[in-house]
Amino acid sequence: MPSPFCHCQCKMCRVPGVRHCSAHPSCGVPVVHSQQAPRRVDERSVGRALGRLKAASGTHSPSVSDIERALPGVVQIDACFLSNPYATTEVMKRLRAISAQRLEQMVCHYPSQAAGTAALLASYVGIGADHILAANGACEAIHALLADAPGPLLLSLPTFSAYYEFAAGPLITHQLRPQDEFRLDLSRLEALVARHAPETVVIITPNNPDGGLVDRSALIEFVRRVQGRVRQVIVDESFSHFGSEATPQTLTPLVRELEHLVVVNSLSKSHGIAGLRLGYAVANPARIRELRGSSLWNLNAFAEWFCGLLNDPGYLDAYERARLRYHRTTQQLFAALHELPGVTAFPSAANFALLELDRPAGDVAGALLARHGVYTRDCADKRGLSSDHYLRIAARSQPENDRILTALHDVLAAPQPTRTHRRIPQPAAA
Amino acid sequence: MPSPFCHCQCKMCRVPGVRHCSAHPSCGVPVVHSQQAPRRVDERSVGRALGRLKAASGTHSPSVSDIERALPGVVQIDACFLSNPYATTEVMKRLRAISAQRLEQMVCHYPSQAAGTAALLASYVGIGADHILAANGACEAIHALLADAPGPLLLSLPTFSAYYEFAAGPLITHQLRPQDEFRLDLSRLEALVARHAPETVVIITPNNPDGGLVDRSALIEFVRRVQGRVRQVIVDESFSHFGSEATPQTLTPLVRELEHLVVVNSLSKSHGIAGLRLGYAVANPARIRELRGSSLWNLNAFAEWFCGLLNDPGYLDAYERARLRYHRTTQQLFAALHELPGVTAFPSAANFALLELDRPAGDVAGALLARHGVYTRDCADKRGLSSDHYLRIAARSQPENDRILTALHDVLAAPQPTRTHRRIPQPAAA
Repeated sequence: MPSPFCHCQCKMCRVPGVRHCSAHPSCGVPVVHSQQAPRRVDERSVGRALGRLKAASGTHSPSVSDIERALPGVVQIDACFLSNPYATTEVMKRLRAISAQRLEQMVCHYPSQAAGTAALLASYVGIGADHILAANGACEAIHALLADAPGPLLLSLPTFSAYYEFAAGPLITHQLRPQDEFRLDLSRLEALVARHAPETVVIITPNNPDGGLVDRSALIEFVRRVQGRVRQVIVDESFSHFGSEATPQTLTPLVRELEHLVVVNSLSKSHGIAGLRLGYAVANPARIRELRGSSLWNLNAFAEWFCGLLNDPGYLDAYERARLRYHRTTQQLFAALHELPGVTAFPSAANFALLELDRPAGDVAGALLARHGVYTRDCADKRGLSSDHYLRIAARSQPENDRILTALHDVLAAPQPTRTHRRIPQPAAA
Repeated sequence: MPSPFCHCQCKMCRVPGVRHCSAHPSCGVPVVHSQQAPRRVDERSVGRALGRLKAASGTHSPSVSDIERALPGVVQIDACFLSNPYATTEVMKRLRAISAQRLEQMVCHYPSQAAGTAALLASYVGIGADHILAANGACEAIHALLADAPGPLLLSLPTFSAYYEFAAGPLITHQLRPQDEFRLDLSRLEALVARHAPETVVIITPNNPDGGLVDRSALIEFVRRVQGRVRQVIVDESFSHFGSEATPQTLTPLVRELEHLVVVNSLSKSHGIAGLRLGYAVANPARIRELRGSSLWNLNAFAEWFCGLLNDPGYLDAYERARLRYHRTTQQLFAALHELPGVTAFPSAANFALLELDRPAGDVAGALLARHGVYTRDCADKRGLSSDHYLRIAARSQPENDRILTALHDVLAAPQPTRTHRRIPQPAAA
């Protein structure tokens, strides 16, 4: 069947603006450069295509490559997925410097087993290897943590959907409210612990999709107070590198004394390496041994190579500079989002902001993509958001942020459609 | 703490003959070239170090990088892990041709979800994407298949240890015997099905560590006969590309009609890409949907790129030539192994041969590594082998095979030690 782009349909053929994979010289499709102007397509076709792709992606956004396959050339700026582009640049410099011989050794050999990869992470994570599970992305760690915990799971909504999708038993939901700016009230959460005796409590700080931060001291107090009353408190710090210029804070050292504490982190977002698949969990050694039982050679050679890079002071310095630069540009974006007409931008300590619009986010997301090539996250499917007016915007590089803002001003300048505010039915929450 | 090689201790710093990772310019350790002569170390130290590493690696062999960390420069030829080196060469040509821009897109974007990666495999596997689970290595598929099957698992021994390590419930073992050349007798297996009513039956063909092949027609008959009596029959074809110049045979098409059949395959061995982590399972669509529930974005960008490559006719032609070349050199190695003094080489349809020696395999493996830099698999820890005299040799390229044979002749020419044959206590088998 003839295709609009390279027959191999591989990811490389589907990245923004690229339609031909150079690894396949037998494919005759012409190369299209990525710096082209966004392809103008009508908003209704884009809306329909996005809807179809969304339906096939569950509670997650369609990947950029999925969109590229359906709407080649449309995505110019990815403001949907949450990743530091300046950090990616630092990794790429070093990845491209790998010699041909070493690259071949990486490809042909089995990677190290769990203890070996944990040892590579120990210095960066700041705790002994026996406390660390190196994971094929944070999602693998989340699945492992919940798969053997069938008791009730207490979770605040809205949040990252993997936590309710991977839940092995009943879910107790704690509703965060827009009038509180989605702030987590730990005393309310503790009352739910007393009432429902959950096996697992999950706290994501900063939270996704709103970016709300939980105060560190209060969180430590909470974790201490529920000791002995829950099997595990999972604190997900995947967005902890974005909120401040200060050294990112973590509860990691506390796992030495608090046996029920598990800290989860992703390196995809902070270090710009989503394609490598790397995250980790930190917990007491007995729990880590249990978790390792479900995987063998779970990291690929490139993720293992990156674990090595985390021991290189030169790289760590460069990463820190990239982190600070991204933080500054992100703060500028956030300030400008507050100025948008008809928009409430919630305070965020992450690298994205949740906007409440005066109209359905799906229409805005479709127009942003069709007219400006800007891919954003329509949050209509997020459990715990009570209307379809929420849009999430991820920060990118400075020039990309400028284009995102121009696009938002253009799309939101149009009169508000007459369509009424649609309330989304929510499951009963605790 | 000063280290004998690069402080980062990453995998690249631990590959044979390489002690410094070029990605870390701040490391002052001098580069050592890989074409050096094997470092002579005394056999007793090597034996002790191997023993320690083995103890830390469970039922699997220490990775080459683990050995390199403990004994830098010692491994010159990896005849332990099971992978086609000619196939690696074909992949590397194409991996190195990826442009800088595309490589960056691969690293920074999330990979596709399960349905997307399955679609990329469909043409190669020869069945629709809804029948395919793309896995982060075959081990991930094996774990998923067994994690939700707590009923008894019927398994022939010796075999690949992941199957008994990942078993979620009781194990019924069927002992293969050296006097039968480890051939699997399907009528005996069927009698065990009748007697024990297992939930899962596993058949690996060719089997690891002996390379024994199960006759395809007889296997299909067996699978048909046990339909309705077991929940799943897992047929692992990870070594099916090595036994013959003919097109590799597979039971894959039968999953359309046999709902209890699951076919597992690894691409690590056949395509020489162990570091990329890629395998798959084929089953009926309902089972595949269940299995996909435990993973999100489980393939990394390089594995997804390789899935795309499997749709490129130019690559597939090159792979087939590499497969035939490797088959020919493997057959030459096997013929020569039969001529070794004091050795029984079992018939193998895989890319490795199991040898029964006249002395403990651990002594021979230590001497091969210490004197000749040849890393082999001492099978003393393999369940189902009744003595410590079994050694597994993986086929490599033609010149490497010549060095392996020279090394074996040298080591086995020494008089047989007086130490007696040690029988290994085996668990009670059905």
